[in-house]
Amino acid sequence: MNDVKIIEIKKSIFEDNDKDANNLREELKRRGVFLLNLMSSPGSGKTTTLIQTINLLKDRLRVAVMEADIDSDVDAKKIKAATGIESVQLHTGGMCHLDAEMTRQGLESLPLDKLDLAILENVGNLVCPAEFDTGSCRNVMILSVPEGHDKPLKYPLMFSICDLVLINKIDVAPYFDFDIEECKKNILLRNPDARVILICAKTGEGIPEFVDYLIAEVNNWKAQ
Amino acid sequence: MNDVKIIEIKKSIFEDNDKDANNLREELKRRGVFLLNLMSSPGSGKTTTLIQTINLLKDRLRVAVMEADIDSDVDAKKIKAATGIESVQLHTGGMCHLDAEMTRQGLESLPLDKLDLAILENVGNLVCPAEFDTGSCRNVMILSVPEGHDKPLKYPLMFSICDLVLINKIDVAPYFDFDIEECKKNILLRNPDARVILICAKTGEGIPEFVDYLIAEVNNWKAQ
Repeated sequence: MNDVKIIEIKKSIFEDNDKDANNLREELKRRGVFLLNLMSSPGSGKTTTLIQTINLLKDRLRVAVMEADIDSDVDAKKIKAATGIESVQLHTGGMCHLDAEMTRQGLESLPLDKLDLAILENVGNLVCPAEFDTGSCRNVMILSVPEGHDKPLKYPLMFSICDLVLINKIDVAPYFDFDIEECKKNILLRNPDARVILICAKTGEGIPEFVDYLIAEVNNWKAQ
Repeated sequence: MNDVKIIEIKKSIFEDNDKDANNLREELKRRGVFLLNLMSSPGSGKTTTLIQTINLLKDRLRVAVMEADIDSDVDAKKIKAATGIESVQLHTGGMCHLDAEMTRQGLESLPLDKLDLAILENVGNLVCPAEFDTGSCRNVMILSVPEGHDKPLKYPLMFSICDLVLINKIDVAPYFDFDIEECKKNILLRNPDARVILICAKTGEGIPEFVDYLIAEVNNWKAQ
């Protein structure tokens, strides 16, 4: 029952990814689908965040998820079981990121004409996914408390291309040397326009604010 | 006083990395230097683990560290301040991994003839560093409890090439859904010969076992 589609993504020839990405964005615009690219380190809580978010969101927007991983279908099954929405697993064949053409291959497996929002959960990696425009309308990343507040100093590009940073696992902040204000300062150093929301995906804290953000972004984008 | 050398690593032409790696290993063998390649996700505790390890190790082996990062010199400074040993920062110019030629560039900045052990702290990334042999004698990785016990399922290559997995932050295990036995099972699925040591880099728990492992490996390698 919780079987999910597994799509084996082919490596792109990567001739002009920026052009492919712009073309994909234009096509999505015509079809009225907002593409969100969600990135983070391995284990920072992307899937749990998505489950909480989708359960608050699915009665207000028509949403589906693409779970990109090198191997396994753990995440796509989890999403489908916990939310009931359409969820596909993209296997990247060892690739450390998705580019626009690979994203397009994933999107083709979704019922785009019945969607408002398609979410791409990118490969867990703070380096390579930041270098490739997937064609998304917005880039969002999760930084979890155990990773440390210095990460924007070490992974500058990722933080500079994200419109929103979700700081996750704030429930365990007392057990780690994590300075939220210092972290915000480091994020704004990389992207002065970045928005920051504190969340705990496990308990759902902060998720309503992320849901409001998504609904506003999707509506703005459709109205443009 | 805590200023550290920053080496801007040039991207390799990458003609035959396996050959470069074997050549580097042979050269290190001739010079009596053991190279350890330490890998993990961002924020899993590589630098803190190294500080604890080096402070127990530095009177028994002559050791130096290369800290690879895309940007910042936070880690090299931390290591130098906390241990007093030679520590250099390698800037990868945006690259998500180090190959053998890049590692060689870093080693050239160290006083190799006065060392038994050179440690490379690779870029925080569970994907790309696993694909490039650095010329190291051993690969060790850190998986931290907050990342989850399913990571060997999602990042198979990293776990299959590592001789030893350090499971870090075991002090916070009660606050996370982390099953140590399940994690060990997942690691052995990828590499039946992998050794696993539980550590808490913050308190030093388990570090003596890692130090014993390193000393035995360095001595075995020198004796071969």
